[in-house]
Order: sequence, then C-alpha cells, then structure tokens
Amino acid sequence: MKDDSNPTSRKQDRRDFLGISLGLSAAGMAALAAAETAMAQGIATSPNKLQSLIVPGDTVLFQGDSITDAGRSRETDVASKPNHQSAMGNGYAWLAASQLLIDRPNDNLKFFSRGISGNKVYQLAERWQADCLDLKPNVVSILIGVNDIAHALNHDYDGTLETYEDDYRDLLNRTKDALPNVRLVICEPFVTRCGAVDDSWFPAFDGYRVAARRMADEVLATFVPFQSMFDAAAKIAPPEHWAADGVHPTPAGAALMAHAWLKAIGA
Amino acid sequence: MKDDSNPTSRKQDRRDFLGISLGLSAAGMAALAAAETAMAQGIATSPNKLQSLIVPGDTVLFQGDSITDAGRSRETDVASKPNHQSAMGNGYAWLAASQLLIDRPNDNLKFFSRGISGNKVYQLAERWQADCLDLKPNVVSILIGVNDIAHALNHDYDGTLETYEDDYRDLLNRTKDALPNVRLVICEPFVTRCGAVDDSWFPAFDGYRVAARRMADEVLATFVPFQSMFDAAAKIAPPEHWAADGVHPTPAGAALMAHAWLKAIGA
Repeated sequence: MKDDSNPTSRKQDRRDFLGISLGLSAAGMAALAAAETAMAQGIATSPNKLQSLIVPGDTVLFQGDSITDAGRSRETDVASKPNHQSAMGNGYAWLAASQLLIDRPNDNLKFFSRGISGNKVYQLAERWQADCLDLKPNVVSILIGVNDIAHALNHDYDGTLETYEDDYRDLLNRTKDALPNVRLVICEPFVTRCGAVDDSWFPAFDGYRVAARRMADEVLATFVPFQSMFDAAAKIAPPEHWAADGVHPTPAGAALMAHAWLKAIGA
Repeated sequence: MKDDSNPTSRKQDRRDFLGISLGLSAAGMAALAAAETAMAQGIATSPNKLQSLIVPGDTVLFQGDSITDAGRSRETDVASKPNHQSAMGNGYAWLAASQLLIDRPNDNLKFFSRGISGNKVYQLAERWQADCLDLKPNVVSILIGVNDIAHALNHDYDGTLETYEDDYRDLLNRTKDALPNVRLVICEPFVTRCGAVDDSWFPAFDGYRVAARRMADEVLATFVPFQSMFDAAAKIAPPEHWAADGVHPTPAGAALMAHAWLKAIGA
C-alpha cells in the first residue's frame, strides 16, 4: 500500500509522472532529480537549465586514471584553481568542461581534474580525502576500471572483478556519506579492439563494464555509456582512429567522449 | 493588407506563431522551416528530429578552405563515398559528422567534405558544379573568408570585402537556383589573436564576419557563430590553445567548432 504522506515517495511519484510525460531517459530522470535537489537547496536555475545535471555555481570534479589525467599539470599554482587548461589536461575532461564554460559563461561553473595515470579504484580511495572530499564538489564524475583489469591480466595486480566492484561501492558510499547532496556521474570503462587490447581481455572486460553500470544504478548516478559509443564509432572509422593503443583516446576519440559526457549530463 | 489566401504567407504566419510560442532562436526558426520542408517532401521524421536542421536521409556537404579541408584525402575511391574518415579530414567537419552518425545510426545520413586549402569564394565558385551541385546535397555548410582577407593583406589578391560579399551572394543564389530545397549553413569566419593574425587584420576582418552574417540572414541560412565562440574560448585558455597560428584550429579548437556547429543545427 502506498504511503502518500511520505514526501520522498510523493517526490518520486511526481518525478515518474514528469519523466513519463516528457519521455525522459534514465539520464533525463537523473537530471530531473538533480534539478529538484538544486531547487530544494535554493539554487537559482533558469528553466532551460533544468535539463542539466550541472546547475549554476557547481564545482565539478573529474576523477580517474590516465584517460582523465591526459597530461594535466600537478603544479599547485594551477591545479588549485578551477578551469585551468593545463591542470585539466588535453582529454575529454577539458573538452567537456571548456564547452560548458563557453556555453554557460555566467553560471560560475568550476571544474577540476584529479585523474592520475595508472590508477585503479583502491588508488583513488587512498587519495580520496585530498583529491575529492576536500574539494567539496557538487558533481563528481568518475572513469575507472581499465587498469583494474589490465594490471590483473599482466599479473601486476591480484585484484579481481569482485575487488573492483567492492572497492568502487565503498568509494561511492564514502563519497555520499561525506557529501550527502553530491551528484555522481559514473563513466563506463571502455576499450577499442586494437593496440594492446587483444582477445585475452574478453569476456572478462565486459564484467567491469557491467559492474560500473550496476554501481551507477545503485547510487542513482548518471551513467555515460562510453563503450557503446566507441562500439558505434568503430563502425564508421577504424578503432585505431579513436584510440590507437586500444585504451588512450586520440583527439578524435576524446572529442567523442566529451560529446557523450555532455549528452549524458544534459548539457 | 494581409492576403490570407497565400499559402506561403500562411505557412510563414504559422511558423512565426510556433517560433514565438516555443521561444525559438533564428537557428530554431530555420530548423522549423527545414522540418516543414522535409515533411512537405514526405520525409519521415520522428518528433525529436523536428528540432534538427538535419533530417533522416540527408546528404550533408561541408565546403570551405583549409579549415574544412583538414588534411582530407582527395582519392576518388574514398572521396566518392559518404562518411569516409580519411575523405572528411581531421577537423570540425569530421568531428561533427561522426558525432551525428553515432547519435543517429538509423537516419541514413551521408556526409561529404570538399574543403580545399587556400580557397577564397571565387575558387569555390569555379568548382561548385562538380564539388557541390552535382552531389545534390540537402544541406550545404560553408566556411569561407579567411583567405579572402589574408591574401588581400599579403597583396597576393586584389579582392576586397565587396568582392567577398558579391561573390558569396552569387554563389548562394546559384546554389538555391540549382537546389531549390537546399538548407544552408553559413559559418562565421574567425581568427584567434595570435600567430599570423596581427593588428593589421583589424578592423577589416570584422567586415568579413558581418558580411557572412548578412548572407545568412538574406538566404535564411543557419548561422554558426564561430568568432564569438573563439572569443569566449580565449577567456578560458590562451588563443594559441585553440588555433596556434591564429587561423587553423588545434584538435581542441576543432572539437569546440564541432560542438558549436551541432548546437547551431540543433543536433
């Protein structure tokens, strides 16, 4: 029996109704939830911003491995400031951030990146206090997983898929505990079928993708389906065009990623 | 006195009404007109495609100079086929096309590029029959102008701003005469304030930008405001980051351009 006196349930009902009438995707529903949160927090939003997960005044943190790192500077004088190109690197994080900054110049958006090449989930956890929680982000976008499997395949790491999922769940719950209003974006780990990525990666790799998707569902995060995007991209140009070594995007691959990320957050 | 028996006038009235109710921009109005044309031609469109200038089945041609060329292959075996990466180059044209192809895999979109490095408007005109009209595009996107001014500044060309505008107007009218239902996209010529672009370019360059905008208004084309985008970009990273020599975009600049182009056409 439905308890109509429960405000959370009523809010969910209204959101379901709006979502159905507007034909919203899961990402759209997440954006709607984010807009409600933003409104509840008294953040002024104009009607055309209600579609976006990112609202005026937000601090947005990109986290992950080398794909997010993308050659960013660690120098404190730049990395401590938001929206600094050299501190954001040359990958999807900077491309997505710069496009939002140009589209919404008056929204006071603040972007940071703390991706570090080679990282697996447990290494994010080791530096999470300084490199996430202390920045008090409103939005945290995470892309992690390719090293969790690659280093296991190389026998440099004894973590398994279960380790990945357990560590990831702990990290997300820790984030939500420390930042109760945080909006989460979980990016699907991806590879292209070329370079260092051979048949030995499959079907194991699919397990990591599915686990990331499950994490997104569990914590009501916006999910960015990078693998399905790269699969579609491989139908229109060779996989090497998008990520020559199978893992690290070319500039064309990074541009696609930024586009998919912005689409997922409802830019 | 208004003649209500005139179907064109009634169509325009309805479009104005819809545009005002929906709060559409000039680009939105152009997209609405394009959707009406598409519907009149019996092209099936799903409701969420009505926002886009580009409808299922479209052949889209990018035309221009080196910025559109972007190292594309001229080999007939690839350039005669649509959606071929090497024939589309590595610039904004390919990035925009690939993002649309990935987002709308079932829409049978066909993209071609015929940008040639160094071209001015009169050189587009010289090859327009083979490199535009014969391809029977539904959408033609043109970015031209930077050589028209640069070669004049270098004293390699005796064309003036008036030559640019007259030649451009002739080219557009010729296109509309040959392809009455064509939808046009006119891209704003742009520079970044660095590299080869010094003070001698200004204020003359602004005249070319304004002329392109005027052309777009005259022929009811969708206008892509690249210069205002690059001006905004220069506030968040040095101009060299976006186009190191002042004219040719870096990969980051090309990604911004693709984003702006897709936004303008209502992707």
